[in-house]
Amino acid sequence: MGLVLRGGTVVTALETYPADVRIDGEQIGMIAQHIEPTAADQVLDVTGKYLLPGGIDAHTHFDLPFGDMSTADDFESGSRSAVMGGTTTVIDFATQFRGEPLTEALENWHDKARGKSYCDYGFHMAISDWKQGMTAQMEELVRKSGVTSFKLYMAYKGSMQVDDGVLFDVLRKSGEMGALVCLHCENGDVVNLLVQEARAQGRTAPSTHPLTRPPAVEEEAVARAIALANMAKAPLYIVHLSTRGALETAERARKQGACVYIETCPQYLLLDDRRYEGESFESAKYVISPPLRSPEHGEALWEGIRRGAVDTIATDHCSFNFQGQKSLGRNDFSKIPNGMPGVEHRLGLLYSAGVVPGKISLNQFVSLTATRPAQLFGIFPRKGTIAVGSDADIVLWDPQATKVIGKENHHCHVDYEPYEGFSQTGLPVHVFLRGRQIVRDGKLLDSAPGGRYLFRKPLK
Amino acid sequence: MGLVLRGGTVVTALETYPADVRIDGEQIGMIAQHIEPTAADQVLDVTGKYLLPGGIDAHTHFDLPFGDMSTADDFESGSRSAVMGGTTTVIDFATQFRGEPLTEALENWHDKARGKSYCDYGFHMAISDWKQGMTAQMEELVRKSGVTSFKLYMAYKGSMQVDDGVLFDVLRKSGEMGALVCLHCENGDVVNLLVQEARAQGRTAPSTHPLTRPPAVEEEAVARAIALANMAKAPLYIVHLSTRGALETAERARKQGACVYIETCPQYLLLDDRRYEGESFESAKYVISPPLRSPEHGEALWEGIRRGAVDTIATDHCSFNFQGQKSLGRNDFSKIPNGMPGVEHRLGLLYSAGVVPGKISLNQFVSLTATRPAQLFGIFPRKGTIAVGSDADIVLWDPQATKVIGKENHHCHVDYEPYEGFSQTGLPVHVFLRGRQIVRDGKLLDSAPGGRYLFRKPLK
Amino acid sequence: MGLVLRGGTVVTALETYPADVRIDGEQIGMIAQHIEPTAADQVLDVTGKYLLPGGIDAHTHFDLPFGDMSTADDFESGSRSAVMGGTTTVIDFATQFRGEPLTEALENWHDKARGKSYCDYGFHMAISDWKQGMTAQMEELVRKSGVTSFKLYMAYKGSMQVDDGVLFDVLRKSGEMGALVCLHCENGDVVNLLVQEARAQGRTAPSTHPLTRPPAVEEEAVARAIALANMAKAPLYIVHLSTRGALETAERARKQGACVYIETCPQYLLLDDRRYEGESFESAKYVISPPLRSPEHGEALWEGIRRGAVDTIATDHCSFNFQGQKSLGRNDFSKIPNGMPGVEHRLGLLYSAGVVPGKISLNQFVSLTATRPAQLFGIFPRKGTIAVGSDADIVLWDPQATKVIGKENHHCHVDYEPYEGFSQTGLPVHVFLRGRQIVRDGKLLDSAPGGRYLFRKPLK
Amino acid sequence: MGLVLRGGTVVTALETYPADVRIDGEQIGMIAQHIEPTAADQVLDVTGKYLLPGGIDAHTHFDLPFGDMSTADDFESGSRSAVMGGTTTVIDFATQFRGEPLTEALENWHDKARGKSYCDYGFHMAISDWKQGMTAQMEELVRKSGVTSFKLYMAYKGSMQVDDGVLFDVLRKSGEMGALVCLHCENGDVVNLLVQEARAQGRTAPSTHPLTRPPAVEEEAVARAIALANMAKAPLYIVHLSTRGALETAERARKQGACVYIETCPQYLLLDDRRYEGESFESAKYVISPPLRSPEHGEALWEGIRRGAVDTIATDHCSFNFQGQKSLGRNDFSKIPNGMPGVEHRLGLLYSAGVVPGKISLNQFVSLTATRPAQLFGIFPRKGTIAVGSDADIVLWDPQATKVIGKENHHCHVDYEPYEGFSQTGLPVHVFLRGRQIVRDGKLLDSAPGGRYLFRKPLK
Repeated sequence: MGLVLRGGTVVTALETYPADVRIDGEQIGMIAQHIEPTAADQVLDVTGKYLLPGGIDAHTHFDLPFGDMSTADDFESGSRSAVMGGTTTVIDFATQFRGEPLTEALENWHDKARGKSYCDYGFHMAISDWKQGMTAQMEELVRKSGVTSFKLYMAYKGSMQVDDGVLFDVLRKSGEMGALVCLHCENGDVVNLLVQEARAQGRTAPSTHPLTRPPAVEEEAVARAIALANMAKAPLYIVHLSTRGALETAERARKQGACVYIETCPQYLLLDDRRYEGESFESAKYVISPPLRSPEHGEALWEGIRRGAVDTIATDHCSFNFQGQKSLGRNDFSKIPNGMPGVEHRLGLLYSAGVVPGKISLNQFVSLTATRPAQLFGIFPRKGTIAVGSDADIVLWDPQATKVIGKENHHCHVDYEPYEGFSQTGLPVHVFLRGRQIVRDGKLLDSAPGGRYLFRKPLK
Repeated sequence: MGLVLRGGTVVTALETYPADVRIDGEQIGMIAQHIEPTAADQVLDVTGKYLLPGGIDAHTHFDLPFGDMSTADDFESGSRSAVMGGTTTVIDFATQFRGEPLTEALENWHDKARGKSYCDYGFHMAISDWKQGMTAQMEELVRKSGVTSFKLYMAYKGSMQVDDGVLFDVLRKSGEMGALVCLHCENGDVVNLLVQEARAQGRTAPSTHPLTRPPAVEEEAVARAIALANMAKAPLYIVHLSTRGALETAERARKQGACVYIETCPQYLLLDDRRYEGESFESAKYVISPPLRSPEHGEALWEGIRRGAVDTIATDHCSFNFQGQKSLGRNDFSKIPNGMPGVEHRLGLLYSAGVVPGKISLNQFVSLTATRPAQLFGIFPRKGTIAVGSDADIVLWDPQATKVIGKENHHCHVDYEPYEGFSQTGLPVHVFLRGRQIVRDGKLLDSAPGGRYLFRKPLK
Repeated sequence: MGLVLRGGTVVTALETYPADVRIDGEQIGMIAQHIEPTAADQVLDVTGKYLLPGGIDAHTHFDLPFGDMSTADDFESGSRSAVMGGTTTVIDFATQFRGEPLTEALENWHDKARGKSYCDYGFHMAISDWKQGMTAQMEELVRKSGVTSFKLYMAYKGSMQVDDGVLFDVLRKSGEMGALVCLHCENGDVVNLLVQEARAQGRTAPSTHPLTRPPAVEEEAVARAIALANMAKAPLYIVHLSTRGALETAERARKQGACVYIETCPQYLLLDDRRYEGESFESAKYVISPPLRSPEHGEALWEGIRRGAVDTIATDHCSFNFQGQKSLGRNDFSKIPNGMPGVEHRLGLLYSAGVVPGKISLNQFVSLTATRPAQLFGIFPRKGTIAVGSDADIVLWDPQATKVIGKENHHCHVDYEPYEGFSQTGLPVHVFLRGRQIVRDGKLLDSAPGGRYLFRKPLK
Repeated sequence: MGLVLRGGTVVTALETYPADVRIDGEQIGMIAQHIEPTAADQVLDVTGKYLLPGGIDAHTHFDLPFGDMSTADDFESGSRSAVMGGTTTVIDFATQFRGEPLTEALENWHDKARGKSYCDYGFHMAISDWKQGMTAQMEELVRKSGVTSFKLYMAYKGSMQVDDGVLFDVLRKSGEMGALVCLHCENGDVVNLLVQEARAQGRTAPSTHPLTRPPAVEEEAVARAIALANMAKAPLYIVHLSTRGALETAERARKQGACVYIETCPQYLLLDDRRYEGESFESAKYVISPPLRSPEHGEALWEGIRRGAVDTIATDHCSFNFQGQKSLGRNDFSKIPNGMPGVEHRLGLLYSAGVVPGKISLNQFVSLTATRPAQLFGIFPRKGTIAVGSDADIVLWDPQATKVIGKENHHCHVDYEPYEGFSQTGLPVHVFLRGRQIVRDGKLLDSAPGGRYLFRKPLK
């Protein structure tokens, strides 16, 4: 009644070894040098394939409202894109809107995801409108709803940005409960000044966007965030870190005892600010925050990954169509919705650019894309590794297979592809979610979305 | 017609040597191994005395409005206290009130000081209500009014605190003009949260004050300020730095090329947070911001002074009477006006605690109290040294004389003395301001206030 | 024909999970939620026990000549002590004597170990007498003999100490081959001066020993070693690091890209320099190099372990009897043979002092004592983890069992016990070496020594 | 009977101001806005000129034996070159030869200098052959001979190099006495290995020289030196520091409380390793140790100078003729005598490249070339400043005058000029040594050498 994956190579954050694996129901039931299938067992020959734990993308924005629109991807298209790329779990940002209780925001997001997700999913709670006394709601989310992480923004003045008092208050409460604060670190006051100034000067092309968010606004915010987290005795997770200086700041703090975790994204490793050159509106496709950086920052991030200073790689998938959405900012870069897709290509891009040329090991690859996110966000060892008793979220990875990434072959609902033309080596052939195969030979099986909500544990 | 000071020892930031000095008019006309007086010259025997350049206190608040009151000291009593202690120049903070143009604030302060000051004086401009376009006013102040430094507050949310955008904007403009931004570095958002929380919890004694302004709020703000100054390519002057961590942060930044100057005050070197112990309202006398710290911070500051990391020592003289002013906060520490006197004892305290026990040299003493303030605030070498052509602001210092500091013998208008009972070794015997003797044998001469406004130069 | 360990909890450096494990021959054949034994299988109920990978002690000196004696433990008693404590692999130091080719030194050590070791073993090659052209011998050791690590001493002037030129030369060659240099870091020139001075002054008690090897001689040597390794583009393994300063130095270097690994030992975590107090010759039991340190160093090392800065914990087991060996230095501390036993209690002490009070996790415990040594010294994943296909070196650990450590119950051949009276919580109940049980219920099975030599791989 | 210098601008490390200066005998007798000469006084109009304190070069090697030759310059030609460039004091290295008592070495150097020096001079004592008990000789040198600084070499294995034990011993004794150890910081063991290797490989051109002394050998040695000085509680003066890394190391140590002073030389600021390109033997002219570096190091040194991290600029003048001396190494770079001239052009080069383009201020220029050397080597304020009572060592500097440096116009006895073709702006017009004019209008006056030995004070 089980399924035996025969002849592959198991890869975890720690080991790489040949073994047969048997899936029993939703879990991994057995790992052995040789598994003799029972009559009831099915057998799948996976010779030459890696068995990877299903990818975990801890940073997605599916079905996020934007003015009177929403992101191009909802949970259905977003999660489909995820599983096609080997990601079987996402942690999306349930986002509080002004005046809303946090619990209502959570319900809202449950409604968006329920029955639509091809992968398992959890929620961080993004707080935009903090009120005295909301700590009780935080507690309820952690204890009763399995939401053990909170997101705050130090940027986006006038909308998502919170002041340092709120940041400190939320950190302190999180620290008490073992919850984790995810932080968007850019100095929003300075960004706001630079944006207003640029607009007043008539500099409206997308090429202006990165000039209003220079590396130093991230570096400053990271330093401040860590200082506040230390004061609050709380751990801190810095999302989409993009600069050399911020990385160095975080590492120095760590050595002095700070508990700070670092996420970066493929776009900061593989793309750079040459995408903003010229005055073409094409650059709007890469209008994200923080913006793409000059190549030296990418090199520093790779080096940080190599030496273990970066914990996770997520995507910040937040997709807007070029036509009809990005185009809202045709006459004013500050009106371009910030974000780009990416959930599908995370594993493939990192494997191609990291593992193939030997920058990182296979085990580091697994750690960054699955194990560490699972550990930090309270779902390990259920997710994030190949071990007996863990959920059978397994990706069969063909290290020889290749493709060229393009709009024609991606599975999200966006009308452009930021990595258009990138060659990918290594592809997910089969994907299992809790024992059920959802991708076979690189094709989505004709099955209804079967992803479930993940009730997560606090860090302590 | 000149005055020959005969037989003393000249002390500058660089040298210590025996010499006669002749004052010609308002300047130092001659320094020589032996000066033969002309018939018209007067001679004053100063054998056994040091000739120090008159002290410069770059941080005072005289006649500062507070609600419907003002500080206990106006320019008359404040400057009298200054000269009695050997300080012949103060740079006070002209303070903009909400809605006011900067130039009006300056006029306001000219009115307060004109004809009332016993010492020479300049003004920094403290900005509280920044409006787009005020950079033109800044330019006018620098070019036409000789106000070449600006003060901003990162604390006092709701009154003086500015956001990081304003801070960056003012820094950038200052950097262009060679003006210097003086910054009060504490994270006001966090302080505000802690204050509100304490009040809500009924913790209202003055002993709560330091708990709402822990060392980390200063350290964070210093790091942020330096980051913003670097972005703005502007030099930065950190007022009343009080913590080890902030000092280390500043030094690390300096080594990486930041242009940051550091001021500390005697209270952070000689007093500590044991003054807040217990629930007595006496502690209100020491309610200042930043608050007194634990002794390890004072030690770190002394060590920083020793190795040259601290540029200046000022007082932040901002005096409120215990009765009638400090007492406003009897039921709520947050209503206690922040500040304490100190302008009179700066030289004496630093000499006693620094030079006498050999922690710092005589030359460092002069550098910290006169030379560096003059250099940084655009009045060197007119002020801040003993050199031919410099203003004859000379303090004759008797290194053997002693006194015990107390309310009974200080010259400011405050009803308590924070250094009550401290022994002082080294006293100013005679004080000259631009050649005119204003203190003789430790007594104020019966003369009208003769201080003049100092038109200051920018740094470049 | 296999053996099923039923009902225990598997612990690796990564995961902790309940599972049955089947040993097939010398390897781990299967891990599963439930293993149905075949008729030929034996079953051992290990409910309530942890299945740990057998410990790896990468730093022992068995049967080391000393003058015309040898250490108290040879391979038989040393390895017996090891397995009784849960250590199934040691990497001992084959030591070149003056004039000897390296290959001869290796043969020498093979002779000492062959047929006598209860645990598996590998050899580092300790070089004392470097000759131009020995790089060819290094290459032969790595390629043909499986010796992929070399040991050098920066201390012991006149015997083992090499100069910086030799150090650089060996590092360079090691870097080329992917071998690892293990380094004893103390400035031998300074130590020698201090020792000679002490002797000349008649300070001969063992309490003088630590004064001749202050923390700074280690910190300096570590900084120098890293500088030379960087120049040589070679990785570096610092043995028995004992001081806060050296740890900080290593971490700073790492952040700047240095490839440096750190070993410490239980004695630097659990004992301190109070053992040297007074003039009693009892202190000779703790005459080791580097010496025991003041408690703050131990705290810093614990903190470093916690944050992942320390790679491995080994013992530097180098045992001398108090009577007849240590006593050689009764009239001159510099004649006391340096070293102490420890191989038996490494796991128990670290579990008791680290895991039980929550300083480190179970997974960190495994990483430090087994996984990292295996990775760094080229025997992973064959050794150092519990995974299908790995050697069935398994320790069944009873987390509830306790004992009091004492000379009466240890298994090495030394006439004193440095941890006398220490309470240990957590004990190895059963120990398997490559599938063969060698300890049952805490007793050595009556079997001949079955340890084998480990041919190790280079790092790249 | 005095000499009045009328109408010039006095420049010290602190101030720049117009004043008349009167020289009375050997000292500066008076500084005044206007000096009315007596009938007996001479007057020299120095309008438009700077009055600088005579330069102090703390690092020269005049008449240094080398094999059976000596350096090209003895005290006569060397000191003539010095005064022609505005340097009125040198501190030369009396050098102990193997077997010699230190006091004999001193006598030896007195013999070389007596009656031959145009400038005043002091001696450091360079120790090459340390014997137990030599500390008594050190004490005698400090107390009775006014030699308050000692030089040691960490390089030149087999000749001048001392081991770390000697270094520590000398540092410790110096620290006790307030003497200062000057240290040549390069790891001689590694250099020796690289040199032997290069020779064995037949790489014999001068272009090989810098490859055997890479930046890292200096950086390592500086770190080690500081560590040993800290252990010894002694201040440390690092001679001819040449690399970015070493500078950063020294600054980091300083911030942690180390007392370390830094000297660099014009060659490390103005020349770079492109002088070694190609295989021409011309490069031998620049064979010095440490060698010229790549331009980034020079930039780092300039930046260090700017921020005050460098204390002094000396020359390491150690001149060998290209023909007959440098040429000894025509077939083997390791036989090229190390060194180059420079004492004459120090002020001019630094003024031209530092003051003229605004990299450093006039006051910094004076500090680096005169004031700091005087302070550190115990002759301040007698030397190193323009103050009443100081020696009248005065250089009248014409900031407008220019020349092109070349072999034809230098005054040392070397057959090449390393700065050939460099343009110099700013020239010494008149030079006074203790009140006596020795250079007039850029020409040496026809007078016998009048330099005197300087008995120097310890630091404390």
